Amino acid sequence: MSRYKRSFASDNNAIVHPDIMKALQEANNCHVLSYGDDPFTQSAAERFKEVFGQNSEVFFVYNGTGANVTGLGAITMPYQAVICTDSSHIYVDECGAAERFIGCRLIPIPTEDGKLRPGQIQPLLHVLGEQHHSQPAVISITQSTEMGTVYKTEELKALTDFAHSNNLLVHMDGARIANAAAFLGTSLKALTADAGIDVLSFGGTKNGLMFGEAVVFFNEKLAQNYKYIRKQGTQLASKMRYIAVQFEALLTNQLWLENARKANDMAALLANEVKGIPGIRITQPVEANGVFVSMPVAAAEKLRQEYFFYPWNTDKNEYRWMTSFDMEEDDIMEFVEAVKKAMKAL
Amino acid sequence: MSRYKRSFASDNNAIVHPDIMKALQEANNCHVLSYGDDPFTQSAAERFKEVFGQNSEVFFVYNGTGANVTGLGAITMPYQAVICTDSSHIYVDECGAAERFIGCRLIPIPTEDGKLRPGQIQPLLHVLGEQHHSQPAVISITQSTEMGTVYKTEELKALTDFAHSNNLLVHMDGARIANAAAFLGTSLKALTADAGIDVLSFGGTKNGLMFGEAVVFFNEKLAQNYKYIRKQGTQLASKMRYIAVQFEALLTNQLWLENARKANDMAALLANEVKGIPGIRITQPVEANGVFVSMPVAAAEKLRQEYFFYPWNTDKNEYRWMTSFDMEEDDIMEFVEAVKKAMKAL
Amino acid sequence: MSRYKRSFASDNNAIVHPDIMKALQEANNCHVLSYGDDPFTQSAAERFKEVFGQNSEVFFVYNGTGANVTGLGAITMPYQAVICTDSSHIYVDECGAAERFIGCRLIPIPTEDGKLRPGQIQPLLHVLGEQHHSQPAVISITQSTEMGTVYKTEELKALTDFAHSNNLLVHMDGARIANAAAFLGTSLKALTADAGIDVLSFGGTKNGLMFGEAVVFFNEKLAQNYKYIRKQGTQLASKMRYIAVQFEALLTNQLWLENARKANDMAALLANEVKGIPGIRITQPVEANGVFVSMPVAAAEKLRQEYFFYPWNTDKNEYRWMTSFDMEEDDIMEFVEAVKKAMKAL
Amino acid sequence: MSRYKRSFASDNNAIVHPDIMKALQEANNCHVLSYGDDPFTQSAAERFKEVFGQNSEVFFVYNGTGANVTGLGAITMPYQAVICTDSSHIYVDECGAAERFIGCRLIPIPTEDGKLRPGQIQPLLHVLGEQHHSQPAVISITQSTEMGTVYKTEELKALTDFAHSNNLLVHMDGARIANAAAFLGTSLKALTADAGIDVLSFGGTKNGLMFGEAVVFFNEKLAQNYKYIRKQGTQLASKMRYIAVQFEALLTNQLWLENARKANDMAALLANEVKGIPGIRITQPVEANGVFVSMPVAAAEKLRQEYFFYPWNTDKNEYRWMTSFDMEEDDIMEFVEAVKKAMKAL
Repeated sequence: MSRYKRSFASDNNAIVHPDIMKALQEANNCHVLSYGDDPFTQSAAERFKEVFGQNSEVFFVYNGTGANVTGLGAITMPYQAVICTDSSHIYVDECGAAERFIGCRLIPIPTEDGKLRPGQIQPLLHVLGEQHHSQPAVISITQSTEMGTVYKTEELKALTDFAHSNNLLVHMDGARIANAAAFLGTSLKALTADAGIDVLSFGGTKNGLMFGEAVVFFNEKLAQNYKYIRKQGTQLASKMRYIAVQFEALLTNQLWLENARKANDMAALLANEVKGIPGIRITQPVEANGVFVSMPVAAAEKLRQEYFFYPWNTDKNEYRWMTSFDMEEDDIMEFVEAVKKAMKAL
Repeated sequence: MSRYKRSFASDNNAIVHPDIMKALQEANNCHVLSYGDDPFTQSAAERFKEVFGQNSEVFFVYNGTGANVTGLGAITMPYQAVICTDSSHIYVDECGAAERFIGCRLIPIPTEDGKLRPGQIQPLLHVLGEQHHSQPAVISITQSTEMGTVYKTEELKALTDFAHSNNLLVHMDGARIANAAAFLGTSLKALTADAGIDVLSFGGTKNGLMFGEAVVFFNEKLAQNYKYIRKQGTQLASKMRYIAVQFEALLTNQLWLENARKANDMAALLANEVKGIPGIRITQPVEANGVFVSMPVAAAEKLRQEYFFYPWNTDKNEYRWMTSFDMEEDDIMEFVEAVKKAMKAL
Repeated sequence: MSRYKRSFASDNNAIVHPDIMKALQEANNCHVLSYGDDPFTQSAAERFKEVFGQNSEVFFVYNGTGANVTGLGAITMPYQAVICTDSSHIYVDECGAAERFIGCRLIPIPTEDGKLRPGQIQPLLHVLGEQHHSQPAVISITQSTEMGTVYKTEELKALTDFAHSNNLLVHMDGARIANAAAFLGTSLKALTADAGIDVLSFGGTKNGLMFGEAVVFFNEKLAQNYKYIRKQGTQLASKMRYIAVQFEALLTNQLWLENARKANDMAALLANEVKGIPGIRITQPVEANGVFVSMPVAAAEKLRQEYFFYPWNTDKNEYRWMTSFDMEEDDIMEFVEAVKKAMKAL
Repeated sequence: MSRYKRSFASDNNAIVHPDIMKALQEANNCHVLSYGDDPFTQSAAERFKEVFGQNSEVFFVYNGTGANVTGLGAITMPYQAVICTDSSHIYVDECGAAERFIGCRLIPIPTEDGKLRPGQIQPLLHVLGEQHHSQPAVISITQSTEMGTVYKTEELKALTDFAHSNNLLVHMDGARIANAAAFLGTSLKALTADAGIDVLSFGGTKNGLMFGEAVVFFNEKLAQNYKYIRKQGTQLASKMRYIAVQFEALLTNQLWLENARKANDMAALLANEVKGIPGIRITQPVEANGVFVSMPVAAAEKLRQEYFFYPWNTDKNEYRWMTSFDMEEDDIMEFVEAVKKAMKAL
């Protein structure tokens, strides 16, 4: 790849991976039926079954918010509630899309590290059966979390066991599940179908795609009417093949893993390089492709002039740096230099 | 372009125009901020102002249903009603997306040719001010229509004058507005800003894009809160540049017009070739890129085995053939041969 | 009852029946738990089982719109459609309540007499299974209809058989079902449970209650989650006993039937008296408590100064006169005199 | 009133005040137009203007949830958020009605005493203008609160000043505002119009009505389209007079104040009598008609067999006792005896 300045603001500032561009180009050579009735889509769906298990069913959508909202729509009624963290994308970053589309309450749970645990959910269940209260029906978790941390498979199982024994379902926002699998060294299936997840938003855009996410059901009954929900939810693509072939490429030769590993490695390198700088503190375990630091505001502001990135928690002077698959060691080291310069200038 | 069999089922069965693919490739060389805060998106927005007027404001979304639903969401309250034809895409082909997202009634008006006229709307307005009834607030028209016909500018002005003098707004589903402009020989601005349209869904996907539509407001007040509606409506793209550059290319060197003309010409050729075949009747004026015919069911079924396409109105044995920018005369003549063969086999 | 001028505008212009007032007074003598956990509500629910069958389940709500909207909410998903007449209360007179609350499309069918028949519904079913289209799932009928006509039990059975064999359910807006039963001489059960109806809005307010309607399910599975829908739909009354005792009184000593008969008789008398007046034409069979007439506008306007009532269809100079249980022959004859006077003044 | 056992579970377990019953009876003597076009409703609306100021506009609805949901619907767009306490009725006790009907996020703020303060709201406002986040637009407070506490007028003004200077509006759930006014010795206007409240749900049912609440706007612009929202929200009563006359009676001869005072006095008496009982602790200031106590579970369970009431916070062994206008000293003393007996039995 050519030399250009990388952004640490978000992994969606990255380019499209060249293999994905190539797949798009190659699919652009014929007429096919629209809305998914085409061989490209069928082939990609088969690939998903290989990766996630033969009982999984995949549907392609445009983006993460669309995947989350329509996926949750398939497993909720409007009088129900979705339990999530108060840092979750569905709660913080989707402008209330879920409430409007599915009519449900989202119940935000504060966490230290972005992870939900059964003990936090149990106290919410005493309202079950009472007509006055939104009925908790779904636990939505994010893997890897918005805090850059990763649920271990046993943590997932503890949650899904708890959920299922209380007649709840579990939705996973997997916008960065690839980074979690890369960190844990597990398969995608181990983190989803095998861990008891019911519905997954499988992320593509943050891991090298141009656009496109996938909603994967691990119980075909839940998927039964999803096609109507996707359409009514404005998430049915007409030229579907151009999402399908991106995913096919992503799941071929483990491109998904290669990309995620690269992003994770860059985050680890970055964390390693800045952790010794006096005045900078790493605030979350660096497990996926995010590095959360607290640093003096003045230094952060100076740095942000050169490299734009987001404050995460202004109360704690906490900032978020995201790495992506299209970074190289040089990019990290250049950024680290800029960090050091900003700190020195204090 | 290489030789492959063209589909007459829909113009979204076509490929992505090579110039669009090139634009995507060229934009894939740097990090930029997401969600539209990037120079590609700014540049494309400027291009829209050149084409649609300096008072226009554009927002990119994923698809036509998303454009229609969120655009209508910006100009309605849930207790209001949207008047449309009973053949309109929003009424027939979006699985009730508008009702669910904006909460409004859609009022379907039967038409012969897919066009609304003030005389059909006037009788609906006697409920204005009465609390019992959904309040008509928007007229939604499609240009070119779902029947392949085209509103003339004076027809548009008659409608928008009528609407505005009754405190209604006018939304245009312009999934195929390029085909209308090509047919009429007018600019896009003449059919929208100058004709009194308030909000436009400007189509890209059916005219050579991979994905992407644009919502264009001709009154900045109406656009004021649209950004929230787009986001809540799941239609905000993270890697926005990849929609923006497609539109930039489409509006450069009049690619939009070239593509639309080609599609229209192919429809005209097709209509001309089949109109003399005994047993086939062309049921709508061929003004854009659709040819509607009635033909014997047996012949249609035979033909559909070779070339899949949709029945339009089974009561009248009516079928729809769509042409697209990536067809050549040879494609049409091959299809005409197949039609003739199917008719002869009766 | 004392002498006062009766209104023919609507049966909800009437008073509360004295027996209902008495029941309210008698229940006002103790503390009881709210939201239906009280002996009054339990007793009334038992009474409903006696009247509608042991498999029926009743829930009390505030009004007809609330009953319709929440009842439909219990048997639909937002991507589905409800088929109704274009004169139905849910389509015309509820300001889009159904669309907003349940997210569904309502499909309006034009009728001569306010009645739906299978032949009108069959053509709508070809979209079943197609993701692009709102999926017809419920037929909603009104008994007696908004046109004052009455479905015979065999007409109901034809509809429900048709519906069930196509996997549709049938909702009945029974705001005036009592008038239908009075006309046909049948039980309420014969028109509902026995006729295959799935969910009923059972009207009270138009038949002598102060307020209150009942949602009755004839299949307990459908009722399963209704309590949450009623609450989320703002239709759960805290001091529930005051709805319950009204219904208990209505279903005791056949007050419901006595009231409905009286209203029907008054309509029949009115129709009989005006049918011979030159220039007045009765436009619908007078089967329940509505009389639809066409008459010269000038006469109607004159009459409306004395007796306010609603134009029904201004294209046809059609007007609606409703009778109610608290009218006597004298009231009818006075009104007839006024009609005659208005006609003579032409 | 006759002797019967009072319930301390909720003030909606009480009867209807005899003056209200009388008003209902007296209105039951004529035909009037429905849906509020009647002299009873006009008269009651005038009475509201006398009480709340000439700039106020009142609309009658059925119940508190209906008042809250439709009132909030008049001042929000679906992409906005409503800030409330995590103990508020709209958040806890309405089964998600607001989310479903208005599409908004509710943001729950934990409080000690049920009261919101500007300092808790300020940190939520940094998202204003950012498309990714539900936009805070309304602060909803409850007066008196769900914890039995009362906002002083200066606390209200601090909140409304803060709100208005940040372009937010303030909604007051006044299900028990009468109890607050009685406690503070202020007028209803002082707590609403004069304190900067924008929209009020004015409670009737808990203060002696059979059913009925009122939505009062203090800015006529906000009320402009409310009639459609009320209708679409299923809250328009056909026989409106029977709500109107109840409110007219409530606002006549200060019945509202007399009832509220009585309920408050009974709470004060109850609190006074139990505060010295060892093992019982009063957990909230007793300012309105609720007494919150912590007590041993075993004693509470024993007591609940005789007098049903609700646990409030099981973590703290906290219970809620509500008093109502139709209680007398004897009722309180009987209950206190039962409390003492239950405590002794430990």
